[in-house]
Amino acid sequence: MCGTHLNHMVRLGEVSTSQPSPQRRPPSHDPEGRRADVLAAARRLFARHGYAQTSIRAIAQEADVNHALVVTYFGGKESLFMEAVGRFHIPPAALQGSTEGMGLRIAQAYMDRWEQMADDDPWLALVRSSLSHEASYELLQTELEAQQTVPLRHALGDTTEGRQRSAMVECLIAGMILTRYIYRLQPAASLPAAAFKAAFGNALQQAITGPLPTR
Amino acid sequence: MCGTHLNHMVRLGEVSTSQPSPQRRPPSHDPEGRRADVLAAARRLFARHGYAQTSIRAIAQEADVNHALVVTYFGGKESLFMEAVGRFHIPPAALQGSTEGMGLRIAQAYMDRWEQMADDDPWLALVRSSLSHEASYELLQTELEAQQTVPLRHALGDTTEGRQRSAMVECLIAGMILTRYIYRLQPAASLPAAAFKAAFGNALQQAITGPLPTR
Repeated sequence: MCGTHLNHMVRLGEVSTSQPSPQRRPPSHDPEGRRADVLAAARRLFARHGYAQTSIRAIAQEADVNHALVVTYFGGKESLFMEAVGRFHIPPAALQGSTEGMGLRIAQAYMDRWEQMADDDPWLALVRSSLSHEASYELLQTELEAQQTVPLRHALGDTTEGRQRSAMVECLIAGMILTRYIYRLQPAASLPAAAFKAAFGNALQQAITGPLPTR
Repeated sequence: MCGTHLNHMVRLGEVSTSQPSPQRRPPSHDPEGRRADVLAAARRLFARHGYAQTSIRAIAQEADVNHALVVTYFGGKESLFMEAVGRFHIPPAALQGSTEGMGLRIAQAYMDRWEQMADDDPWLALVRSSLSHEASYELLQTELEAQQTVPLRHALGDTTEGRQRSAMVECLIAGMILTRYIYRLQPAASLPAAAFKAAFGNALQQAITGPLPTR
């Protein structure tokens, strides 16, 4: 993430023109090669135009293959996105093992990813379009359910207490992404990474093993 | 907020048609009355179409006044929005006084507002359009700076420690809004309000007066 926060945002509203990309290699003729071409084309277009503005048709055109072939290989846009772009959320290792130190493990995993996030990362585009585009919202919600809600339920339990703890972990993660990396609010955006990570890991750990809410 | 989460979202993409509204009263002829007409028209259109899709021209037309008059009275769209819709964030009383109990005061203030939030509240529309619309983003960022960053800096101090605490309060508030009310993630969205508020107030209090991050 660099300081030119919304340069990318403006591009999300543009119509995808799907001009052939200069870095494209000649189309493959074997099925494996064509599959790889489609994935590479999808990565380029999702990064360039965001999830909302990228169609399967544009990806097929960019990869120089038939539209029906893309559908046969990958099903819909959602499954193509997931395969092309890769998964994103809490790495399973952060939630395995003792709850002692889990806060810092989660903080480390997220900050490793977000401190290095490129302005044209397709996941960033997906988050940005998720509040105003129904299909982006549904994809993000489905992925958050699978990659965050379910593992947290396993790690922290499905009791009222476990659910309260999980909900606060979710609040901290979503808020971290929004305040430090997307809205770039102060002081979250300008704290040095080490100081932010210490506070974030500490707050996560409090949510996971700290004093229970008094009611 | 009801369960039909994204009905409203779809409307944000529509072009504002600015048909005369049935509840509109006859136009006033005195300056005070015309000013009130403009504010009422602005409230209706911001709620119906969101900040991004509402123009000063459409508001002038809805209020049956001249476009130039709206600019003379209110300046730009941003100041008109703030005057029509009202302020939103941490109420000053929640941040005044002792830091003991501040977590629950903030939790109470936010949840009083969000548990009652109508699907067509103009602030909700602003938050939703803020990730894909530059002017919405700028307005929200400016308001968050004034209504959240500055008061938190006064309450928690401008030291590294105070900034770490402020950043975690911001994360929790932003994450609460996003996970419980906008994305409606589990378990945040389905916890009973009392259980969520207890956990949220507790986490805020930990951020404000709890153990310091270890580095």
